[in-house]
Amino acid sequence: MGEVNTALSPRAATALWTAIAEPPSPAPTLIDAVGPVPALEMLRAGELAGYPELGAHPARWLERLAHLEARGWDNPAEHFLMPGDPHWPTQLADLGPERPLGLWVEGRPEVLTRPALTIVGARAATPYGTRLAGSFAAELSASHVIVSGGAFGIDVAAHEGALAAGGATVAVMSCGIDRAYPARHARVFSQITGSGAIISEYPPGTAPARHRFLVRNRLIAALGTACLVVEAGRRSGALATARRAAEIGREVLAVPGPVGSRMSSGTNQLLRDYGICATEPGDVLEAIGQLHADPPPTSNRRKHDCLRGERGAVHDALTDVASPLGDIARRAGLTGPETRRALSGLVALGFAAEATGGWHRLEP
Amino acid sequence: MGEVNTALSPRAATALWTAIAEPPSPAPTLIDAVGPVPALEMLRAGELAGYPELGAHPARWLERLAHLEARGWDNPAEHFLMPGDPHWPTQLADLGPERPLGLWVEGRPEVLTRPALTIVGARAATPYGTRLAGSFAAELSASHVIVSGGAFGIDVAAHEGALAAGGATVAVMSCGIDRAYPARHARVFSQITGSGAIISEYPPGTAPARHRFLVRNRLIAALGTACLVVEAGRRSGALATARRAAEIGREVLAVPGPVGSRMSSGTNQLLRDYGICATEPGDVLEAIGQLHADPPPTSNRRKHDCLRGERGAVHDALTDVASPLGDIARRAGLTGPETRRALSGLVALGFAAEATGGWHRLEP
Repeated sequence: MGEVNTALSPRAATALWTAIAEPPSPAPTLIDAVGPVPALEMLRAGELAGYPELGAHPARWLERLAHLEARGWDNPAEHFLMPGDPHWPTQLADLGPERPLGLWVEGRPEVLTRPALTIVGARAATPYGTRLAGSFAAELSASHVIVSGGAFGIDVAAHEGALAAGGATVAVMSCGIDRAYPARHARVFSQITGSGAIISEYPPGTAPARHRFLVRNRLIAALGTACLVVEAGRRSGALATARRAAEIGREVLAVPGPVGSRMSSGTNQLLRDYGICATEPGDVLEAIGQLHADPPPTSNRRKHDCLRGERGAVHDALTDVASPLGDIARRAGLTGPETRRALSGLVALGFAAEATGGWHRLEP
Repeated sequence: MGEVNTALSPRAATALWTAIAEPPSPAPTLIDAVGPVPALEMLRAGELAGYPELGAHPARWLERLAHLEARGWDNPAEHFLMPGDPHWPTQLADLGPERPLGLWVEGRPEVLTRPALTIVGARAATPYGTRLAGSFAAELSASHVIVSGGAFGIDVAAHEGALAAGGATVAVMSCGIDRAYPARHARVFSQITGSGAIISEYPPGTAPARHRFLVRNRLIAALGTACLVVEAGRRSGALATARRAAEIGREVLAVPGPVGSRMSSGTNQLLRDYGICATEPGDVLEAIGQLHADPPPTSNRRKHDCLRGERGAVHDALTDVASPLGDIARRAGLTGPETRRALSGLVALGFAAEATGGWHRLEP
């Protein structure tokens, strides 16, 4: 490894970092500060131990680097995208220090810079859910790349809907792009790479693991301009993806379903808490239309600048001291019910809290 | 009529006005300004023609008065409630100049001053809708009078649900209270008057008519603290009732339903536009801030003492400093998902807030 190290380009070093530093980790912050090659040199020289904010990470990184050296790290750089590359999806900057170091890509990287929409949901979806996921994806793929996670149920129905309509779709893997998972979707995955892409922040060879699903979900949340949840149980990972999407200013929509259907309990809860109700593709496009009217999000923008419409007005009307509903409504220029609904969304997102005397502002 | 006129009390004059001035009309404004007896005298003396803001109404009122005189107006005053009466539902004042002149009541007028919730929806309801309307009404009738319109479908299911649970319910008629409509509900109506009331702003003898349904709906909207729509098509009158309720500051909730069900297209649209999603009775109580109404609040009992089960355990495990999910779960003796679910409820209720590093306690 020693001779490779000195010869590494920033691209090769960044690719190597994806194999060294499993997310979540402070590696993106370190690399933003010093660059990928110096960061690697500092790691090897033992200089990172002096940075308490890196915690136990450098020790783990060194161990991993030694392991890669022993095994031999063959850098398949032609499949690797990094920030600054023409096809890099710049919206990932909204993840801040949790941005991925880079992306391993199979298929057509150029689709990653097209407007995208995320569609996620339950693995144990019902026919109602898979039918709707397919038809939303088919229609929305006329104008957008459909992003999902390649899983059973809603995910694969969304990918297949986009493919059936001749659209492009992106599957974000929680394992290496060479380890297409689940195996039963191998054929769909090969169709996806024909017009879209299979991507992962994990280097080739990485095995799927439960904790990686959850970590990967932030990329699914960030890639789409909006996040549509089609069916989800109360504990579905799709709800976590939706929450993440909302936190970074994406519109979150949910398809309503029958009360009593376990697979709609999470989506209906999302509708109650902060999601927008979507019964047809036009509802998603309408939500994005509002998004496009706003200034494009930049990385050093404050989180609450992403709040829009009633929520934005109500957040502006909040102070650090609790105010009663009526006062907030007056300051926001909204009706009581509008204000209450916006407040419940803001509380769910951590932008506000209820206390004695009313609601006050929080900075999540 | 002449000799009756000079002897009329304000109550009898107001009752007569309900037979003279069909809503919507400026009669409430006139009566608020001069009183019911002088207003009647001015009408008979032809003095109202000089008020351009009354438009063509006085001419119509005079015609109607002549008709009543010819037919003979027998004032059944014992069934008549007017503003200022002890059982008058004061929340109707929120309708402003569109308030009813009075209410004709069959049954127990005293229920009209109890806390009330409105449940409305499609006449052509599905079994899904009638089942849910019945169960929402049954549970909510423990703390509230259930208000609806006595129609087929959702309305009667709500009335019957309240009756089955031993609660009180109010049917607001679009015809005279002696003309129970639809006739097929005669038996339900007689049950309603046993514990609740059948009411109408139209005097006895008034026939049901399409335009009266729409006018009547404002009373249904105003009587409840919140308005729950269970099923509704895109053009359902229930949507108009809901909009009216929102306009006068009532919380509006809708039960989600399957996309593709015609009878849920209106409710799902309501959810998209401004309604709060309701999948269980607790959602309605939460919307009106009365989730904790069930255990009788005693003087120095703290609010969070009402929390039970998982929520209570998790609230006990919270401190004023944010803790990560794992720590809270360990302290509460619950699994991660149980803890997260309880936390989301506590946040929604204002008992907890999410912040950097996890969740902390709030005292609402």
